[in-house]
Amino acid sequence: MEKSLDQISSLCKRRGFIFPSSEIYGGLNGFWDYGPMGSELKRNIRDAWWHYTVQWREDVVGLDATIIMNPRIWEASGHVGGFADPMVDCKDCKKRHRADQLCEEQGLKLVKEGKAWKLPDGCKCTACGSKNLTEPREFNLMFKTYVGPVEDDSSVAYLRPETAQAIFAQFLNIVPTSRKAVPFGVAQSGKSFRNEINPRNYTFRSREFEQMELEFFIRPDEAVELICGHVATLADNPDLKGEPQEDWGWEVWHRYWVEQRLEWYRLAGLPQEDLHLYWQTKEELAHYARACVDIEYAFPFGVQELEGIAARSDFDLTQHQKHSGKSMEVMDDRLRLAVAEKSDEEKASFKAKTVAAWTARGKDAAAAEAFVDALFQGRYVPHVIEPSAGTDRLALALLCNAYEEQKLVDAKGKEDVRTVLHFAPSLAPVKVAVLPLVKNKPELRARAREVYKKLERKWKCFWDETGAIGRRYRRQDEIGTPFCVTVDFDTLGENDPALKDTVTVRDRDSMEQKRIPLAELEAFIDAAMTL
Amino acid sequence: MEKSLDQISSLCKRRGFIFPSSEIYGGLNGFWDYGPMGSELKRNIRDAWWHYTVQWREDVVGLDATIIMNPRIWEASGHVGGFADPMVDCKDCKKRHRADQLCEEQGLKLVKEGKAWKLPDGCKCTACGSKNLTEPREFNLMFKTYVGPVEDDSSVAYLRPETAQAIFAQFLNIVPTSRKAVPFGVAQSGKSFRNEINPRNYTFRSREFEQMELEFFIRPDEAVELICGHVATLADNPDLKGEPQEDWGWEVWHRYWVEQRLEWYRLAGLPQEDLHLYWQTKEELAHYARACVDIEYAFPFGVQELEGIAARSDFDLTQHQKHSGKSMEVMDDRLRLAVAEKSDEEKASFKAKTVAAWTARGKDAAAAEAFVDALFQGRYVPHVIEPSAGTDRLALALLCNAYEEQKLVDAKGKEDVRTVLHFAPSLAPVKVAVLPLVKNKPELRARAREVYKKLERKWKCFWDETGAIGRRYRRQDEIGTPFCVTVDFDTLGENDPALKDTVTVRDRDSMEQKRIPLAELEAFIDAAMTL
Repeated sequence: MEKSLDQISSLCKRRGFIFPSSEIYGGLNGFWDYGPMGSELKRNIRDAWWHYTVQWREDVVGLDATIIMNPRIWEASGHVGGFADPMVDCKDCKKRHRADQLCEEQGLKLVKEGKAWKLPDGCKCTACGSKNLTEPREFNLMFKTYVGPVEDDSSVAYLRPETAQAIFAQFLNIVPTSRKAVPFGVAQSGKSFRNEINPRNYTFRSREFEQMELEFFIRPDEAVELICGHVATLADNPDLKGEPQEDWGWEVWHRYWVEQRLEWYRLAGLPQEDLHLYWQTKEELAHYARACVDIEYAFPFGVQELEGIAARSDFDLTQHQKHSGKSMEVMDDRLRLAVAEKSDEEKASFKAKTVAAWTARGKDAAAAEAFVDALFQGRYVPHVIEPSAGTDRLALALLCNAYEEQKLVDAKGKEDVRTVLHFAPSLAPVKVAVLPLVKNKPELRARAREVYKKLERKWKCFWDETGAIGRRYRRQDEIGTPFCVTVDFDTLGENDPALKDTVTVRDRDSMEQKRIPLAELEAFIDAAMTL
Repeated sequence: MEKSLDQISSLCKRRGFIFPSSEIYGGLNGFWDYGPMGSELKRNIRDAWWHYTVQWREDVVGLDATIIMNPRIWEASGHVGGFADPMVDCKDCKKRHRADQLCEEQGLKLVKEGKAWKLPDGCKCTACGSKNLTEPREFNLMFKTYVGPVEDDSSVAYLRPETAQAIFAQFLNIVPTSRKAVPFGVAQSGKSFRNEINPRNYTFRSREFEQMELEFFIRPDEAVELICGHVATLADNPDLKGEPQEDWGWEVWHRYWVEQRLEWYRLAGLPQEDLHLYWQTKEELAHYARACVDIEYAFPFGVQELEGIAARSDFDLTQHQKHSGKSMEVMDDRLRLAVAEKSDEEKASFKAKTVAAWTARGKDAAAAEAFVDALFQGRYVPHVIEPSAGTDRLALALLCNAYEEQKLVDAKGKEDVRTVLHFAPSLAPVKVAVLPLVKNKPELRARAREVYKKLERKWKCFWDETGAIGRRYRRQDEIGTPFCVTVDFDTLGENDPALKDTVTVRDRDSMEQKRIPLAELEAFIDAAMTL
């Protein structure tokens, strides 16, 4: 059966996944709250990402920085000057539009003439139809506030529009304290804020949202060449599933992270066929970026970005170096030792080659020479690969993917629709529901309570004793609980002694029921919990 | 040996627990970042609280709401009107002070005359000594911003100064979707913001901080009386360690949560003797509050609040009922059934008694009657107990408590100082360090890698192969790693065959070393991880 965003958002509201923020006061456009089920789903996503990205890797450490930071960070990053969307007002009905979206909705294209945006001919207000529109002007998407008791220019600060910049700003604190050497990464997950002109597509484009970002620092290719004598590229067919290799250049590292992230989304339960890679064209790329690929998911409202993975060269650290006056260079012992073994001729030829390559790319020869001189001392500003994912977007993708309205026909030929969320068990908000077959038999209830109390130490569990067992199963299906454990008279050994101390475990997806000894129950559930 | 905040903050900086936010740009007063170790510590605190408060309780569900909400929430809560500190400027040196703190620092007391604050005689600027100070005026502590592209009064919004209000604002969505009935609670953890005039004491009073808040909704005592025929008070010596009972009144529920929270702090490793309870006096209590107790910890800078546990009556939900026009009453089936069994005489007498009690407390008789009439239909606005804890404050308390500089004397009589963080194992950022005795023996290193790879699936681990083993132990002591596992020649079975497949496990606190079979290693570590 088809599924629409309306069906999904309606279930999300009804079963406590997602509520409009401040709903009793009419809400607040672009802000969404996660209810009892949604908050567990998001915790599971966040944890799974942290385990996969930080805990299970020796080459990544974590950071948990503030949302409000010194505003000079956003000057260095370019957000104060350039993080803006073009905005247009209808002079008749006063409705405000994002100019690019307004054009897109009418099959038109917003054009840039020099630094100014211009509406194409025929563009009109989608609210009232008027062509009486203002010229597009830039609107900065950062939320502004004031720190301290005085509201003036000196106290302006911004809510971070991304978590990534804190990683660059704390780079000099992290390197010496983490005992990590390049290549290594720093991961952070947390709230970010963008004052979108038109939030839309449910939680997809919100004004407050959560990110999971990794900045993975690598050697410049020139350093790899000095160390290994060559730089591996994709043409060398490197084994991207194996351990990273010392000779990998940025291109291989970038592709490695694309593969890692794709694998993670597959483990999270998104089917391969609904995941798309979009490689930004040369025209779309930021001037400093070497490559950027979006991992997209086929949402009900279209194929849209879940994560962007960018090879950002040394742009970010270099910007902070310029703006803070602090050197962002690391000392690379491997490089220093490798250079020490080179002859003067080899070094001279390496320098000449590098300067030629840089100037061929339109760069400054003096800058190239300074770069090589630093390399010869073992120093460089690391380059970076940035896999940047949206937590809310993944939550929405998982909900869209999990949602199914299943047509069932019972033994008597009666038709019925079952609504079920097929989450990967490790991401499901509730892992196990424990159900006493009847609630008015004290020994049976007591036995079920024992089972429940034991399981809840390990997993989020749900106790439900009201209603027919079939209805209780259906309630769990709607929140995506992978296992329902029913304690019945057989568990007490009242009928067949061989069934004493066994329970029925009902599988959410197949609806099959299995008889499992209580002694094996935890291991049975555990086996399904690997991400 | 003594320990000071300077020693602790210096270790925190050096070993990656806490950095000043935006340090390369001169920092930002009142904002702190958590580095590789600190971010793990905070995750562990957050998780332990969630497990204890949400996962292991059937009567609590979670919420994850936005930081920016509809501003009418803060009108209803009283924050727009009243969440302010008195502020004073020195007219000579221009330094700005929080008036109450300025007085306190000089052994004086700020006085309130009607609605206005007044500085006591003799009060002077602590920066320059001048007595030329402005009168104190109120400064609202909420950070203000604008949502949407227009900056005007209609788009003003605030960063939440507490996480609690979202729970009240979403109450009507949570009740039907969570399948919970009063008494039950809603828990939320997340960032809050207060534009403190003088942030101080390291991370203790910050402008951006994290909270862990629970709103536990209970029946009004009158409903308990109708259901149980009486209301248990502390005078009845209820068993506060056992399961909550239906006849508990607000006083017992409040004390129950104080005990629960104290127990949690003890489990987190804070010694009983460093935890203090401060009961707010009648004069200190907010007008709606029935009782409020602070759990305080003996920080190096004084005994200060970790958590406040308030019995807030039905104030919060009633405020939102008034401001939103939405009824916050719940339908309590137990109550409805209990009332159905009462005779008309019993009901009349109950009503008369309740109205008399209310009017004796200075309340309106008509309101009391309406309240009783609703009760008779099974309806009421729930009361609430609010345990509200600071995540950063607990992190700081744990660091202060864990920190020790230990004087050691070695076998040769040489003195040495060992710096160690005695965290509860389940809260330590790194649980296990795996150390190959030497790094240049391939089989030994390979064996150690196997051990490491297995353990890191389960716990945050650290691999360290550089330096003498004693130095490696010391490095782990400084970040509070409870166990160091050393893989040596005995592990390979090179000396005594009986020691094959065993490792040395060194305990952080006792520094004792135990030989443990690899097959038992996980169970050994696991046994220490209970919170």
